[in-house]
Amino acid sequence: MPYWGYGVDVGGTSIKFGRFTAEGELENQWEIPTDSSQKGKNILPDIGRAIRRDMQGRGLRRENVLGIGIGVPGPVDGRGHVKKCVNLGWDTVVDVPAGLRKELDVPVHVGNDANVAALGEMWKGSASGRKNVVLFTLGTGLGGGVIIGGKMLSGSNGAGGEVGHIPMNPDETLPCPCGNYGCLEQYASATGVVRRARELLAETPAGSLLRAVPELTAKDVWDCYARGDALAAQVVEHFGRYLGRGAAAVACVADPEVFVLGGGMSKAGTPLLEVTRKYFRQYAFHAFRDCAFTLASLGNDAGIYGCMYLVLQGY
Amino acid sequence: MPYWGYGVDVGGTSIKFGRFTAEGELENQWEIPTDSSQKGKNILPDIGRAIRRDMQGRGLRRENVLGIGIGVPGPVDGRGHVKKCVNLGWDTVVDVPAGLRKELDVPVHVGNDANVAALGEMWKGSASGRKNVVLFTLGTGLGGGVIIGGKMLSGSNGAGGEVGHIPMNPDETLPCPCGNYGCLEQYASATGVVRRARELLAETPAGSLLRAVPELTAKDVWDCYARGDALAAQVVEHFGRYLGRGAAAVACVADPEVFVLGGGMSKAGTPLLEVTRKYFRQYAFHAFRDCAFTLASLGNDAGIYGCMYLVLQGY
Repeated sequence: MPYWGYGVDVGGTSIKFGRFTAEGELENQWEIPTDSSQKGKNILPDIGRAIRRDMQGRGLRRENVLGIGIGVPGPVDGRGHVKKCVNLGWDTVVDVPAGLRKELDVPVHVGNDANVAALGEMWKGSASGRKNVVLFTLGTGLGGGVIIGGKMLSGSNGAGGEVGHIPMNPDETLPCPCGNYGCLEQYASATGVVRRARELLAETPAGSLLRAVPELTAKDVWDCYARGDALAAQVVEHFGRYLGRGAAAVACVADPEVFVLGGGMSKAGTPLLEVTRKYFRQYAFHAFRDCAFTLASLGNDAGIYGCMYLVLQGY
Repeated sequence: MPYWGYGVDVGGTSIKFGRFTAEGELENQWEIPTDSSQKGKNILPDIGRAIRRDMQGRGLRRENVLGIGIGVPGPVDGRGHVKKCVNLGWDTVVDVPAGLRKELDVPVHVGNDANVAALGEMWKGSASGRKNVVLFTLGTGLGGGVIIGGKMLSGSNGAGGEVGHIPMNPDETLPCPCGNYGCLEQYASATGVVRRARELLAETPAGSLLRAVPELTAKDVWDCYARGDALAAQVVEHFGRYLGRGAAAVACVADPEVFVLGGGMSKAGTPLLEVTRKYFRQYAFHAFRDCAFTLASLGNDAGIYGCMYLVLQGY
């Protein structure tokens, strides 16, 4: 009997689905909007319905489905319970496997979205063939996923790999969205890049292409950097110094084979990779100074791939 | 047939041995001096001889021995190869299992000394019953061991859990023994405590019990702190601020159930635990702010226990 599995990446705006063969081939992918109204009570039923419909369309029976892997943007414990997930409207503990099993009686595996994305990059992406991987997801904030010996490091509170909240600067005066001061993501994220650019533009009278940009974004900074803008270069160095030092701290715990840089800001490409590695090498302990750095290659599909890998690991 | 195993903790001055039953009871323990002369070429033969002699004395045959677990003060890869180990005189890669098997044909398991100590505390010490544990070994330097899901996090270069070298202070002007600047162990170690005390004594004219101490040690600082000395209190706060912040950084990767504080300086006891936890709570991400802290309970025996646990895990 042939087998399939589903990877489901649940985000605040949309839910991404992938139907995979047991050999890991992505056969079909689609997405639906996330309904976070009424405390997100429709999310699991919506997922169940969408998968049932796809199974019918493909002529699959329950016995053909190895399982469903689900990534959620919140802390997940070892039993697939999600403590709280503001983006989905979940304000209390949600038992994801139990909730989904009401809709569809197949095995369910749950992971944090950043951790499953790291698993995806390890399985089919740019960290393919490795077993010890750290993913940094550089977006509005900084997410992270840590893989040790081929498995997600979920942690005791589902907060394994929360690298965006490494305390980096005890002198910071502005709060991080988490409530602390001086977290890595305050510097090593799109938000951090824009903030630093604005600070430098206000502090110095120096000319810069950035002065002509009306609503400054991190992309503008990387673009101007590519065009040789000196102020943009200062912003990029500031970013790299923090992310490189943060990566050196992570390596003192996890000593990975490779760091993978993903998320929206990873579109900046090689310059982002180079400035991060430069500062990593400056701050890293000698035993892992030559650790590899690479860009993520699965983009927004990393999550569904990682979720399918969860299914295969759990089976 | 009854079974036994041996735990062997190899240090720069002495080699500690433990003979355990398969149920984990420590039946016999002893030590011999470490012969690091001639590039440490006698170390593995000495270990083999010592174990053979103990086996004879106890009437054990090779078939009764499940294996030998060995902890060494250096980076160990997945095959038990030790990259380099200055304290033992090993200046090149040493294949520990192969070297020992020449002496004694039983299974050999090798780990870094700090990692096996963490394993020991998890198995029979103060982290007993836990599966996700971080040990800080507070001595002259700061060692560390990280256990995830009951297994040592050894890392890709054998540098997993090298928490003493987390970059904490980019403005530091004095080098760490590792060659970098601003590593955690420059502040959170006996050396760091003495240094800070000396700095404060030189900087301020304030009276302090510490001024009367001829050759200042970390123990003097903790003793004077217990007696209410204000300058010693400043030193202790400085130490706690660094170790607490370092632990918060480690938790952003590993999210352990418990931090165990061991090593010589852990004799300072509850005050050390309290100041570390106070600053951990200040810097920690909310998901793990209530993480437990405890003092190590196996003292110098943590290593041999952890080594025996390696044997049982490998068997």
